[in-house]
Amino acid sequence: MTNIQIKGVIPPMITPFNENGDVDYQLFAENVEKWNKDNLAGYLVLGSNSETVYLNEEEKLELIKITVETAKKDRLILAGTGMESTKETIKLTNKAAKLGVHAALILTPFYYGGKMNDEALIQYFTDVADNVDIPVLIYNVPKFTHINVSANVVEKLSRHPNIIGMKDSTGDIPQLVKFQSVIPESFNLMVGTASAWYPALTLGVKAGILALANCAPNECAMVQEEFEKGNADKAKEIYARVFPVNQAVTATYGIAGLKYACSLLGYNGGYVRKPLLELKDEEKEKIKQILIKAELM
Amino acid sequence: MTNIQIKGVIPPMITPFNENGDVDYQLFAENVEKWNKDNLAGYLVLGSNSETVYLNEEEKLELIKITVETAKKDRLILAGTGMESTKETIKLTNKAAKLGVHAALILTPFYYGGKMNDEALIQYFTDVADNVDIPVLIYNVPKFTHINVSANVVEKLSRHPNIIGMKDSTGDIPQLVKFQSVIPESFNLMVGTASAWYPALTLGVKAGILALANCAPNECAMVQEEFEKGNADKAKEIYARVFPVNQAVTATYGIAGLKYACSLLGYNGGYVRKPLLELKDEEKEKIKQILIKAELM
Amino acid sequence: MTNIQIKGVIPPMITPFNENGDVDYQLFAENVEKWNKDNLAGYLVLGSNSETVYLNEEEKLELIKITVETAKKDRLILAGTGMESTKETIKLTNKAAKLGVHAALILTPFYYGGKMNDEALIQYFTDVADNVDIPVLIYNVPKFTHINVSANVVEKLSRHPNIIGMKDSTGDIPQLVKFQSVIPESFNLMVGTASAWYPALTLGVKAGILALANCAPNECAMVQEEFEKGNADKAKEIYARVFPVNQAVTATYGIAGLKYACSLLGYNGGYVRKPLLELKDEEKEKIKQILIKAELM
Amino acid sequence: MTNIQIKGVIPPMITPFNENGDVDYQLFAENVEKWNKDNLAGYLVLGSNSETVYLNEEEKLELIKITVETAKKDRLILAGTGMESTKETIKLTNKAAKLGVHAALILTPFYYGGKMNDEALIQYFTDVADNVDIPVLIYNVPKFTHINVSANVVEKLSRHPNIIGMKDSTGDIPQLVKFQSVIPESFNLMVGTASAWYPALTLGVKAGILALANCAPNECAMVQEEFEKGNADKAKEIYARVFPVNQAVTATYGIAGLKYACSLLGYNGGYVRKPLLELKDEEKEKIKQILIKAELM
Repeated sequence: MTNIQIKGVIPPMITPFNENGDVDYQLFAENVEKWNKDNLAGYLVLGSNSETVYLNEEEKLELIKITVETAKKDRLILAGTGMESTKETIKLTNKAAKLGVHAALILTPFYYGGKMNDEALIQYFTDVADNVDIPVLIYNVPKFTHINVSANVVEKLSRHPNIIGMKDSTGDIPQLVKFQSVIPESFNLMVGTASAWYPALTLGVKAGILALANCAPNECAMVQEEFEKGNADKAKEIYARVFPVNQAVTATYGIAGLKYACSLLGYNGGYVRKPLLELKDEEKEKIKQILIKAELM
Repeated sequence: MTNIQIKGVIPPMITPFNENGDVDYQLFAENVEKWNKDNLAGYLVLGSNSETVYLNEEEKLELIKITVETAKKDRLILAGTGMESTKETIKLTNKAAKLGVHAALILTPFYYGGKMNDEALIQYFTDVADNVDIPVLIYNVPKFTHINVSANVVEKLSRHPNIIGMKDSTGDIPQLVKFQSVIPESFNLMVGTASAWYPALTLGVKAGILALANCAPNECAMVQEEFEKGNADKAKEIYARVFPVNQAVTATYGIAGLKYACSLLGYNGGYVRKPLLELKDEEKEKIKQILIKAELM
Repeated sequence: MTNIQIKGVIPPMITPFNENGDVDYQLFAENVEKWNKDNLAGYLVLGSNSETVYLNEEEKLELIKITVETAKKDRLILAGTGMESTKETIKLTNKAAKLGVHAALILTPFYYGGKMNDEALIQYFTDVADNVDIPVLIYNVPKFTHINVSANVVEKLSRHPNIIGMKDSTGDIPQLVKFQSVIPESFNLMVGTASAWYPALTLGVKAGILALANCAPNECAMVQEEFEKGNADKAKEIYARVFPVNQAVTATYGIAGLKYACSLLGYNGGYVRKPLLELKDEEKEKIKQILIKAELM
Repeated sequence: MTNIQIKGVIPPMITPFNENGDVDYQLFAENVEKWNKDNLAGYLVLGSNSETVYLNEEEKLELIKITVETAKKDRLILAGTGMESTKETIKLTNKAAKLGVHAALILTPFYYGGKMNDEALIQYFTDVADNVDIPVLIYNVPKFTHINVSANVVEKLSRHPNIIGMKDSTGDIPQLVKFQSVIPESFNLMVGTASAWYPALTLGVKAGILALANCAPNECAMVQEEFEKGNADKAKEIYARVFPVNQAVTATYGIAGLKYACSLLGYNGGYVRKPLLELKDEEKEKIKQILIKAELM
């Protein structure tokens, strides 16, 4: 499984909660079933948009189980099993592996950010990759972790036989080019935000794990399809059209916004878990208008 | 217990690990016994310096249990039971309460930092304080969380009957003064870094939860004692003398540095847990020199 | 002149100083003559790479004069005439206009950055544009100013009849797309860093003011030429090849690095002005290696 | 003059402009005359609160001249003569010296902030101090420059015979303590913000260059007087009372706020120069309320 080559769009799946804050596994499973009919390459369970930091281990494993059971058979299943400690990351990743996950997306540890220098990150990912039963992908998301993985770290880790790729959620295209210049060709360098999706494709990136793909999977997929068919203008047009939606469901309104957009577009958004706050009515209205303007509803 | 008035020095206790990364409860208990003979007002178990983010629940509860059992009877026992989700924070805090902890130090949730605005933080701490069986203290540590609690939040929360204080680890003295101007007198505003200890005392602060108190508890206590006796110069002199040690065991060398200093000064430092890295030999030597210069060894 | 449509590559020209720190106008003029033979669309005198903040007014005007006199006749001449005050900016811009400059690149005022909100920036650029005799371009360079022009500001100002474009030096491609979504088609949105050059072209950007164009003008131009001919792969290859050079002569070694690269590649680099420091020998050697690897020498 | 020992409060004097944006020298001179009757140790002309970056050289020299002519004879006159280039800083400082300024407060150059490392700053201040006819003080104000002078730089420069002190406007008290640990006793370490005034006094600081001293000079002076008389509580009370005023006239409302407070309290505020914006009516009202609450009106 180590030479997985990832191509296409993967949603970092939202986790619907019910009103009292419990995970609504039923709604989650229904989402996966619906996404099975969309043009997606796989699923990421337990990403940042899954409110993973709010889930306990039991909930995490149950979500993984449902994903594995419900996903269309040819689809890649990734799970975000990074914990702060090396030990716990290895343990959780191996539990995920047993449940049938294909590869693990491992967040950079970040609480002691000042100490997570290149040496520490290289050691961490090496320790994890050496001790887990599935391939590892690096997850770089400074927006949440306030840590940015350096090209030096990417260069070193991309040589590890069990580290097969990276999700870079910075949207920093020049940095992406820098990463490209230091990795072997087989290394799966993916973007982690739809805001960088079209530019990344023009640079040769083949896959994106895109929050926007929760509510607009086919539009995300079409950007890639049209680009690869040689229809750059068409691809760019779709990208530019859904770009403001992506802004709304990430930077501006966050997960509550993404979930509301999902609800409006036929998926199960559900509630967010506290301490996240639900959207106010005027925020909901704004999202609606943005979706309409983007011709998504 | 709600009208706890905290006065004195409290160490955010380190967690010694053994070489293979397991918590060494024996070494931990020995530390508590040793600190029992020092001039301390209480203990914080599961603070940032405890590598709490690297501990699983079982380990956390065991450390709490040992602290409660081992601590000298008149000492205040605080536990850091903040989790990212409101739900998990309440659950863990109530487990800690059952084990005999006197009050909970609750970290600001921070992963979705962009959404942790005043409204969300006020809601979070209110929800927690409403649902836990022991008093709550706010823990503000932007160095790790990249979130800074505003004076507005402090003002609102300091009125909650079950929120009795705050540990502010910023070392930002003007901000401390701002906080003082909005809180009721009974609210326990504590500093969370020895670098601000003497200045905070001159402003009327009565307690400090100080990493440095792990390895130099009595020096920390003497700063306060001398100041309160009217010996400002003596207090200032001790403060200035140990100031560079505090820099070394926090900003410069972090927890590994703090643990090494503990080992040199007669406490059990133990290993750090991965992904934290042990000190290199030259770093150890520098810490030694700093301790010697500060007349601690 | 207001409907200038800018297309192609423009170097933000370096200012060679001699050893005692005086501007070496002769070396400067020689550079312009050499660039006249390169595939460039115009010149920016008094950009950030010109060490403009180190120049007094007399020097600035002399450099403008030489540029106007020396530049090939069909080339666009831009001058960076932004000062901190509205008044001084207007005065200097009109002096530049009298000397024959075609348009002014106006930096955001930034010293009182906390006060340079959208309202202040809109007012500032409007006041300037209303009172100067040549068209205005907005210059956004947070790396130096710690201010980032918002899409809201760009949207408003792009409607001003005398504000004809913008140099965005952030390299932030998603932000560029956001800007594109709010400007009229005639507005000249240019990138200000070669690190974003190819991706920007794929998004429809037509011009770049690129530090790298000081020392590698034709490679910068070829990226665009090949892209527009439909040779995306060729364009991307050149872009990727010179990308590390751009890193070296901007982020890593700064203006001293850029000047040294210019000297190695046949232009007159000259000395930097103090307080900038000259490169150390090992830094010079590294730049040389980077140029060789990029096949520029 | 090199062994100047500075003690007391110094206002970084505002520059009143008239409605069309010209310096109103008359209003400025009247302010100095009024301040002459206040309990001040001296004057800083051309500080950050003087809108210095908006002044041309002629205006600067005229303001210096008026200050020298108008100031009470025993008062220390400082001028902010730092420019971005070493050369221009030396030239302007020597012009100021000729006009009778006692010492120069030299801002860290900052436009190319990434290059202003310890080596560059040490070289810069050394070059300046070596070539000017009056003593030099370092001006550290990261709020505007985004550069923070390190303890290492302070240590080195404090040994230069012609560098006699520093204005640290960070309000960072632990950093102040760090600076104290590396400087000779004769070095004038001053705070540059009233928010740190009382804590700094408790640490042995002897002088403050305080924006607040423009509108509330005597309250600032009383904090020091009472503290030195042994009335710490009284000193602290005044400090705490005017603290919110300082917040308002610096962080919240900036120079426009400071000027409005000056106008309300009997000094000539005048207009700000563009691009700074005047206060809105509701902002003016808020400042008024804050002054009333602080018992300044």
